[in-house]
Amino acid sequence: MNARKRAAPARTTVGDIDAEVLAYTAGRDLELDRALIEADCLGTAAHAATLARLPLRPPILSAADVRRIRAALREVVREAAAGAFTIGPEDQDVHLALERRLTERLGELGRRIHTARSRNDQVAVDLRLFARGELAETLAETAELARALVRFARRHAAVPMVGRTHQQPAMPSSVGLWASAHAESLLDDAALLLAAEEINNQCPLGAAAGYGVPLPLDRRYTARILGFGRATHNVLYAIHSRGKIESVILDALAQVMLTLSRLAQDLIQYAMPEFGYFRMPAAFGTGSSIMPQKNNPDVLELVRARAARVMAAASLVREILRAAPAGYNRDVQETKEPFMDGFAVTRASLRVLAPLIRGTTVNRAALRRAFEPSVFAADRALELAVAGVPFRDAYHRVKAGLDEWAGVAPEEALACKTHWGAPAGLDFAALDARVREAAKLARESRRHHTRVAARLLRAEGGA
Amino acid sequence: MNARKRAAPARTTVGDIDAEVLAYTAGRDLELDRALIEADCLGTAAHAATLARLPLRPPILSAADVRRIRAALREVVREAAAGAFTIGPEDQDVHLALERRLTERLGELGRRIHTARSRNDQVAVDLRLFARGELAETLAETAELARALVRFARRHAAVPMVGRTHQQPAMPSSVGLWASAHAESLLDDAALLLAAEEINNQCPLGAAAGYGVPLPLDRRYTARILGFGRATHNVLYAIHSRGKIESVILDALAQVMLTLSRLAQDLIQYAMPEFGYFRMPAAFGTGSSIMPQKNNPDVLELVRARAARVMAAASLVREILRAAPAGYNRDVQETKEPFMDGFAVTRASLRVLAPLIRGTTVNRAALRRAFEPSVFAADRALELAVAGVPFRDAYHRVKAGLDEWAGVAPEEALACKTHWGAPAGLDFAALDARVREAAKLARESRRHHTRVAARLLRAEGGA
Amino acid sequence: MNARKRAAPARTTVGDIDAEVLAYTAGRDLELDRALIEADCLGTAAHAATLARLPLRPPILSAADVRRIRAALREVVREAAAGAFTIGPEDQDVHLALERRLTERLGELGRRIHTARSRNDQVAVDLRLFARGELAETLAETAELARALVRFARRHAAVPMVGRTHQQPAMPSSVGLWASAHAESLLDDAALLLAAEEINNQCPLGAAAGYGVPLPLDRRYTARILGFGRATHNVLYAIHSRGKIESVILDALAQVMLTLSRLAQDLIQYAMPEFGYFRMPAAFGTGSSIMPQKNNPDVLELVRARAARVMAAASLVREILRAAPAGYNRDVQETKEPFMDGFAVTRASLRVLAPLIRGTTVNRAALRRAFEPSVFAADRALELAVAGVPFRDAYHRVKAGLDEWAGVAPEEALACKTHWGAPAGLDFAALDARVREAAKLARESRRHHTRVAARLLRAEGGA
Amino acid sequence: MNARKRAAPARTTVGDIDAEVLAYTAGRDLELDRALIEADCLGTAAHAATLARLPLRPPILSAADVRRIRAALREVVREAAAGAFTIGPEDQDVHLALERRLTERLGELGRRIHTARSRNDQVAVDLRLFARGELAETLAETAELARALVRFARRHAAVPMVGRTHQQPAMPSSVGLWASAHAESLLDDAALLLAAEEINNQCPLGAAAGYGVPLPLDRRYTARILGFGRATHNVLYAIHSRGKIESVILDALAQVMLTLSRLAQDLIQYAMPEFGYFRMPAAFGTGSSIMPQKNNPDVLELVRARAARVMAAASLVREILRAAPAGYNRDVQETKEPFMDGFAVTRASLRVLAPLIRGTTVNRAALRRAFEPSVFAADRALELAVAGVPFRDAYHRVKAGLDEWAGVAPEEALACKTHWGAPAGLDFAALDARVREAAKLARESRRHHTRVAARLLRAEGGA
Repeated sequence: MNARKRAAPARTTVGDIDAEVLAYTAGRDLELDRALIEADCLGTAAHAATLARLPLRPPILSAADVRRIRAALREVVREAAAGAFTIGPEDQDVHLALERRLTERLGELGRRIHTARSRNDQVAVDLRLFARGELAETLAETAELARALVRFARRHAAVPMVGRTHQQPAMPSSVGLWASAHAESLLDDAALLLAAEEINNQCPLGAAAGYGVPLPLDRRYTARILGFGRATHNVLYAIHSRGKIESVILDALAQVMLTLSRLAQDLIQYAMPEFGYFRMPAAFGTGSSIMPQKNNPDVLELVRARAARVMAAASLVREILRAAPAGYNRDVQETKEPFMDGFAVTRASLRVLAPLIRGTTVNRAALRRAFEPSVFAADRALELAVAGVPFRDAYHRVKAGLDEWAGVAPEEALACKTHWGAPAGLDFAALDARVREAAKLARESRRHHTRVAARLLRAEGGA
Repeated sequence: MNARKRAAPARTTVGDIDAEVLAYTAGRDLELDRALIEADCLGTAAHAATLARLPLRPPILSAADVRRIRAALREVVREAAAGAFTIGPEDQDVHLALERRLTERLGELGRRIHTARSRNDQVAVDLRLFARGELAETLAETAELARALVRFARRHAAVPMVGRTHQQPAMPSSVGLWASAHAESLLDDAALLLAAEEINNQCPLGAAAGYGVPLPLDRRYTARILGFGRATHNVLYAIHSRGKIESVILDALAQVMLTLSRLAQDLIQYAMPEFGYFRMPAAFGTGSSIMPQKNNPDVLELVRARAARVMAAASLVREILRAAPAGYNRDVQETKEPFMDGFAVTRASLRVLAPLIRGTTVNRAALRRAFEPSVFAADRALELAVAGVPFRDAYHRVKAGLDEWAGVAPEEALACKTHWGAPAGLDFAALDARVREAAKLARESRRHHTRVAARLLRAEGGA
Repeated sequence: MNARKRAAPARTTVGDIDAEVLAYTAGRDLELDRALIEADCLGTAAHAATLARLPLRPPILSAADVRRIRAALREVVREAAAGAFTIGPEDQDVHLALERRLTERLGELGRRIHTARSRNDQVAVDLRLFARGELAETLAETAELARALVRFARRHAAVPMVGRTHQQPAMPSSVGLWASAHAESLLDDAALLLAAEEINNQCPLGAAAGYGVPLPLDRRYTARILGFGRATHNVLYAIHSRGKIESVILDALAQVMLTLSRLAQDLIQYAMPEFGYFRMPAAFGTGSSIMPQKNNPDVLELVRARAARVMAAASLVREILRAAPAGYNRDVQETKEPFMDGFAVTRASLRVLAPLIRGTTVNRAALRRAFEPSVFAADRALELAVAGVPFRDAYHRVKAGLDEWAGVAPEEALACKTHWGAPAGLDFAALDARVREAAKLARESRRHHTRVAARLLRAEGGA
Repeated sequence: MNARKRAAPARTTVGDIDAEVLAYTAGRDLELDRALIEADCLGTAAHAATLARLPLRPPILSAADVRRIRAALREVVREAAAGAFTIGPEDQDVHLALERRLTERLGELGRRIHTARSRNDQVAVDLRLFARGELAETLAETAELARALVRFARRHAAVPMVGRTHQQPAMPSSVGLWASAHAESLLDDAALLLAAEEINNQCPLGAAAGYGVPLPLDRRYTARILGFGRATHNVLYAIHSRGKIESVILDALAQVMLTLSRLAQDLIQYAMPEFGYFRMPAAFGTGSSIMPQKNNPDVLELVRARAARVMAAASLVREILRAAPAGYNRDVQETKEPFMDGFAVTRASLRVLAPLIRGTTVNRAALRRAFEPSVFAADRALELAVAGVPFRDAYHRVKAGLDEWAGVAPEEALACKTHWGAPAGLDFAALDARVREAAKLARESRRHHTRVAARLLRAEGGA
């Protein structure tokens, strides 16, 4: 049908050029496509089941054919898990590798599965299945880091920490407020991951090369057995949405990385000896053989830089598509690497930060050192104003008497801020509930994904 | 409280430097802040109502005070609508301009409103109110363009159009499929706008400078009367989310522009005389006094370029925040211009494209010219394969007999593609329903926004 | 010839749409084009002179015509300087405004100037003339800031400052090393500005719409009288290079902003009370009416954010062009705003930082506080190693005896680092020479620009 | 000295975390650093020679030591060329791998080489040496493609081709003009590559961790034997310039890719059957087993997309640095991958396009088809105007008589455009000269690089 990657047979030019062209067009597909083997098997199983349901005499695939295909696919998934299924240069990509493998095992039947399918809808569904799995894991890991931050916040809820504006000491605040601010940012990011999955949760299979096929494929059935919420309706949009989905998901991942980067930035700063507020576990820093006191925050610096990397990936994918004309164009292949890299980097960053936060300790004395008297000035002026002193007078009085607060205990200042979300008004129960909810949705999504896979490839018939 | 823009009084340097610094720090705020006058009035009204509810004796504001404030704010909104409320260089921004105006009218009471508030939470709530209004309009305009596209698609549902891959003729397709593919992309974008509004729909007011205040402000009450779904919980996150919200919204706007850009790209191409598929109304092109046949697609080229502009705005906002440390930093001011520009450009693009699509006509003869026989090859091979001819043989037969299809009517080829979402299987009722749903949500959001404003500023008391 | 902005005469649609389309296509041109009035006059004068030299009987323009045109252009430049020359909505851009003005004054002659010219080569040459002037100013301002940094460095050459890696104290260093590192970065940036001017220094005039004209224009003469190093050769490339030049220049400006951003980042950090190394003059910070000790580094935070802005502008321009097909496309209009903004922001940032650096004072005591003993460890281990102690042993000895260095004077440690470019080996004479060279080139370029303008518009004939 | 990658010895956490952290910090260094083996050997040889010149008794390295080191390095380079030198996970990077290898062969001497050097200046010099080699190759490949384009242009100099504005036919033009426009763009890009090499051509060695060493290293000697034009002066800037150099070079590479992308975009468009102007050799397209007429321009689509990739890499590197504080921070490690990828992608794109252009054929008949009469209108109106017909009248006459030109031969129209750089005035000799100049500079740079390497590692002594 579509054979965009099969080279035209007749060639008048020499082998060197062929090799150069092949290398140029393949890019890193051989390597990247390893992540799509399972998805390609699932998509193939669903397509086979859909073909078998077509009201044709003779059928394209019989029930027995479907069972044989399913068995062969199960085998491939097993091989892949064992690292025994390889995609070689002669295959060019996972689709041709799987086709080759199935043809080796099933002969002509192996080719027949590809009836009424194009590599375009095949890779489109693979990437959405891959995304579903990765989004579930990312959500779980986001929840896990949020949990670590909320616990940290609760444990140090009442530990005073100077609140800053323009990085300069401004007002009394707490470690609990600081840590749970980052947690709450992550919880908003979790909502964005879920919104991205909503867009992703549509099945493009049956779109073929973007113009459908002259067969009454039941695309909604295909969508259902692959566990999608619905089918992408318009078959051309099903193809156009390649790259777009990746872009939507990368935007959500970039938001996660934005949160992580800002958390990392704070931790780097507060780990400087001039602050010394926090000490992260030794395993997460890199020391120096000569400066034993050093515990360099390399991990955190890399989180900050890798946030830029994921953001750049998000921008790149969007740009690749901007001027793309209707229908499939090879440009979209270049969205695969930034897409997969975005997941890999975001997930690794989440995973490395969660134990880091869990192991970080707090230095109360160092935190207290920053409480210069002026930190209390704003709150004090407000109190005077509330007591009826005209604003201007209140300010002047406060200015004149800054030294009075030299002895104020930061804890007292904090204790007055009791409204919802303020240092003494943090609603940890609500935060916990949001963390649990995110974790639950991640678990359900992961379970759904696993169940769909198991059912599609199970030994005993029926789709 | 927070006074980041008030210059420190004592200066040892000359006036020139002061002016240069002032100009540098103000940036384009004077101009941009005009869009925030109404929001600043609403936020102020809500804050006044919240202050009045505080269980204090004497109260900071009495019920009568609130009524006077409300009347003054109503007046400002009226002046602003008439262009009579100005933000001058001596004001620096909308907040100080409003404070000045209220103090002129209400004396000391005008200043007292600012008790327990900071410019940080003030601008944060302003921007979210602004975003709510703009998102509602953007959603309405998105629905409107989607409607025009669906109508266009339905009108030309059966008009054959060559489907392309790699921009080369590949398979029979239809104008209906092409146009509704773009419509469906827009409908997914509408979902992203709604998801962005979900994140936006949280009230930051009461966060002050990010560390709360020593008064039991009822932040959830404030959120309610401002029509927000909930209050941002953590007060520091309320401040951190400035810029983040903008980024989330710009990502959604960038997706809208991505869809528009691809639509524009197709229209530009198909308007070339070599195609001549479509003819857009003369008002949307620019002609040439010497080449009368020319109808240059300047508008569409600008849509394509401005998509890059909104994407760049989205990336910029994210980048500004990436390494921002905890608490307010002036860097975020630089997110205001790309944010507002993103709305302005996206909305203008949607508005210019809707009548363009409504007025575009289709040239059936030109569309038919591209149907070279090979366009039918893939479908034909599939039919042979379905009829039991082995794949390889089917392909060879098709290749050998390409000329046979010289006489095939594209309409017939289309008629066979009946499955859901294929050229002959487009579910216009479903598309219409999605368009109506988007339009309805936009209307409701707009109405909600208007109702909240009216209630907050209404003459007869009660919040 | 080219009339891309003139609307086609016959219209079937209503005035509202016309207005919307006009507003959409004009964008911010009316405002931005004000910066191009002088350039448009110079380009017009040069084109007139070129037309007059054509070996035609009768000539298109006589010597007397050229004198009249020159007088009229001189008048326009004078009006523009006085703010009396306006570009109205009916003009759409500077080119039509100038054409209108000249026709008002010169009648048919005013139109005849446009013979053998297109708006495409007209705007192309305008932008290059504008860029030449702006690059000269940017180079001068870059040199000025570099001078301020070198002076600061020299003044504090021997003041010890802890050198950091990973933001943590690592080794003895000096204020002189720190400040002149930023100066040297700026001097490399100056080289990039000059390289960009080299590419810019080609005259596109005579390319018309990109395909030349059937008249033997002497394009090299045109280039010469406009003061360009050479003419762009290929007339199509002359048009393609619109946007590309902007991109090359913005890349250089982005490098300048990168240097400024890193300088600002250091200053922000070292201004925190935990460091207190530097104190910038009060005029450059913004204080707080309630926290009198505060001197917030708003200016520096904005420099940091605006660096991101100029970088985004550079990326945007490149992206707009990436998929642009051969010949003029309206997309390039969208490169004008980021281009002009890039210059405006970079120059304002340079101008605000130079007096800031000049007024910044150094707190020796605060700088010394960071010299914990371990800062001397690395150098000490090296000395032992040089003295023949095996590496491992040297390190162990140093580790074991960190306390020994408690009393070491940082000045002594610095004094040992005498090699070229090390704290005690800074070659200020070489830095001064580079600063002077950059300033000289800027002056020469500015003078060249002024001289060219004066000659082209001078009263007494001859080009 | 600096030991940023050596983990601190004491650990309280489990091995799993260690492995996760190690993987996170290593990133893709093991793989990427393979490209730096030769550079690391050269840098080490030069450092050894510099140490041997120090006026110390006893010397850190004797002449015999230097000879032994040089022999060992020669051996490593040979092993690397044979693929026998590996960088394992226990090495972490090329520097530790080389240190390990040298210590295996030379014992304590292997460690002694690292006296007065840090991994920071080591990697900085490696990357500049790598860049020098890659820039020379990129320049050679740029010249090669420019040569192919100029030849193509010359061969088809007089073949008429419609010149377009807004993608619509506008004026008579030629294949020669079109092709040499892209060539001339590449020649400007070559100038940018040379300007980038100018900035790169500074030696950072001797900077150590950015704060120098207490030994009188002759840094200018080091620079000279490594073949650099000069040493980076300020040692802190030497370290800060890591990432900055990469950014400057990536900007130049992005300009090359911008040119390639626009060339590819034209070729894609003109290969559509509606145009059919050009036919690229079969080896560069990918066909379809079922649609034999297809020759999809996958390679060109990938060039277009990969241009976006290199642009994104350029933006990313700049962004990573924007907020980086003084001194080394691990963030810069993340610049290595986009930097190397930028070279790899740009060079592969140049290499794949040169033979493509060489093999592309031109279809004169197809090119002629687009010459509708109106294409001649603008030139004709100009001729009338020159002949004295007032503008307005000339236009009206042309409009009224469009059909007259139905028989005009495009060749005639082209023949009138003889001015410099116009279709009939292309100065191929000048273009050839520029191509030869670029090729010559590339050859010289490559030869210089090779000579420096040979001299540094040669068997018989003397540096």
